[in-house]
Amino acid sequence: MLKFISVIGAANARGKEYDNALEVGREIARHKAVLVCGGLGGVMEAAAKGAKEAGGITVGIIPGNSNKGVNPFIDIPIITGLGEARNIIVVLSADCVIAVGGELGTLSELAFALKHKKPVIGIGTWNLDKDYCDKVNIIVVSTAKEAVEKAFSLIG
Amino acid sequence: MLKFISVIGAANARGKEYDNALEVGREIARHKAVLVCGGLGGVMEAAAKGAKEAGGITVGIIPGNSNKGVNPFIDIPIITGLGEARNIIVVLSADCVIAVGGELGTLSELAFALKHKKPVIGIGTWNLDKDYCDKVNIIVVSTAKEAVEKAFSLIG
Amino acid sequence: MLKFISVIGAANARGKEYDNALEVGREIARHKAVLVCGGLGGVMEAAAKGAKEAGGITVGIIPGNSNKGVNPFIDIPIITGLGEARNIIVVLSADCVIAVGGELGTLSELAFALKHKKPVIGIGTWNLDKDYCDKVNIIVVSTAKEAVEKAFSLIG
Amino acid sequence: MLKFISVIGAANARGKEYDNALEVGREIARHKAVLVCGGLGGVMEAAAKGAKEAGGITVGIIPGNSNKGVNPFIDIPIITGLGEARNIIVVLSADCVIAVGGELGTLSELAFALKHKKPVIGIGTWNLDKDYCDKVNIIVVSTAKEAVEKAFSLIG
Repeated sequence: MLKFISVIGAANARGKEYDNALEVGREIARHKAVLVCGGLGGVMEAAAKGAKEAGGITVGIIPGNSNKGVNPFIDIPIITGLGEARNIIVVLSADCVIAVGGELGTLSELAFALKHKKPVIGIGTWNLDKDYCDKVNIIVVSTAKEAVEKAFSLIG
Repeated sequence: MLKFISVIGAANARGKEYDNALEVGREIARHKAVLVCGGLGGVMEAAAKGAKEAGGITVGIIPGNSNKGVNPFIDIPIITGLGEARNIIVVLSADCVIAVGGELGTLSELAFALKHKKPVIGIGTWNLDKDYCDKVNIIVVSTAKEAVEKAFSLIG
Repeated sequence: MLKFISVIGAANARGKEYDNALEVGREIARHKAVLVCGGLGGVMEAAAKGAKEAGGITVGIIPGNSNKGVNPFIDIPIITGLGEARNIIVVLSADCVIAVGGELGTLSELAFALKHKKPVIGIGTWNLDKDYCDKVNIIVVSTAKEAVEKAFSLIG
Repeated sequence: MLKFISVIGAANARGKEYDNALEVGREIARHKAVLVCGGLGGVMEAAAKGAKEAGGITVGIIPGNSNKGVNPFIDIPIITGLGEARNIIVVLSADCVIAVGGELGTLSELAFALKHKKPVIGIGTWNLDKDYCDKVNIIVVSTAKEAVEKAFSLIG
């Protein structure tokens, strides 16, 4: 059975974050898992590009009514028309979530992922206060390779 | 670029309808398109089963919060948690919609598909009154083969 | 406890349909029920206008991200950002649904209403084939007054 | 025109948090604004209870398919059937958001509220890292009265 890993992060990510997401995408594909993301730019584009470079399959959960604005590395665009309410679908459809940086949309996804007890791995992402809420359980790693290895060690 | 065809119909379909959906699924896969459906039983299961028999890829847009109840022929389950609000995603994600029979859920999908000007093909489905609303444009066919040929003639 | 009646119909309704929706809205308010609608123009506007004329409360379930385009007779705009996926909320939030004419969006709402076994009353709306699907149960009336009386006889 | 204030917080809140939400609800009603919340228990219930005690109007954006489990202080239950995807509606429908404590669902709502540039006021809620993301702008207050006064100073 296929494994699904969602990569979440900012639509405007560049530089180191873009590169990390690219490498996370590649590693996911090398592990034969399907990449799920929000289908747009920045981290979503980088992860999908990386997955395609390594021969993987990519799914984009699109906020709009059409595939306008979808990055060119998405094999399977799921057109929701739901705006940001689609964020929860990005999370629910994954066996594991990897956050690379990320702003407020990513924060909503982290919240949903933790609420639904999905394994969550972060590279340079939100540092949520575990003392405030003990349900915060983000595994912090430094590299893309480490993130994906950790993901597969958790989801088997 | 991949083509996406949604097959819609009742979750409790059996007999002739199940067989038609099975054959529609097979033909979609033979044409190298991706089958999209609601991921559950009846027509959704039959179409996905047919697509897998012919080596195709299947996507299920799931109403629940997990893949519980998803038919075993779905490669890529999109877990929405939205209940029947997911019906519009089944339609928006398709280049063309094929209805095989169908009850009230299917009726909502036909409505959304026509509203979004998706090509719609029907086998033994709702007979909507074109005199009442001239936006009703369902191409009626009798066989699975005819349905899929028509679909591809429309979406290129 | 408050009763909620949804009025559904086309955003571009005029003439007789607009007048019917206006009168339906008035009657709903006279019966002290809350009017629920999609919050935009045509039948939605007329029903809300009628309800306000008779001193009622109006709720609009808005498809957009803001109250831009919402008709001026909505007291309580619920901003969903969901596009047409909001149609199911219009139906689920009602004790009874009254359709005045209506096009494809209305058809999706009729489908959802019948699926959720809400009482449905129609004035000049879709004539769905009960022979095709015996779950179609729309009570057909000719006047606004009759529609609302029927509604209250059903929901108590 | 009516003003709408959403109160967000944990469904299992008790003690001081429950009391704060109760007082926030009362103050909102005293200011003649409509209380919006998620319609269930804890902070949602307390805020709605307070608003009703002070003669206000309460709206609940319900995740389920029916009003089962809705707290008894909700005048206008909006039944979404969307599960937690309804969180974004709680935020979009408000002129201002007040968070009282809160766990992961609340965190998703804070994220959406900040993303949509809604004024956000917090009493004992998540302490999000403004150094990590400069779009975090939560006005921290200590009392219910202060929270509502601040809200009205911001939305006019």
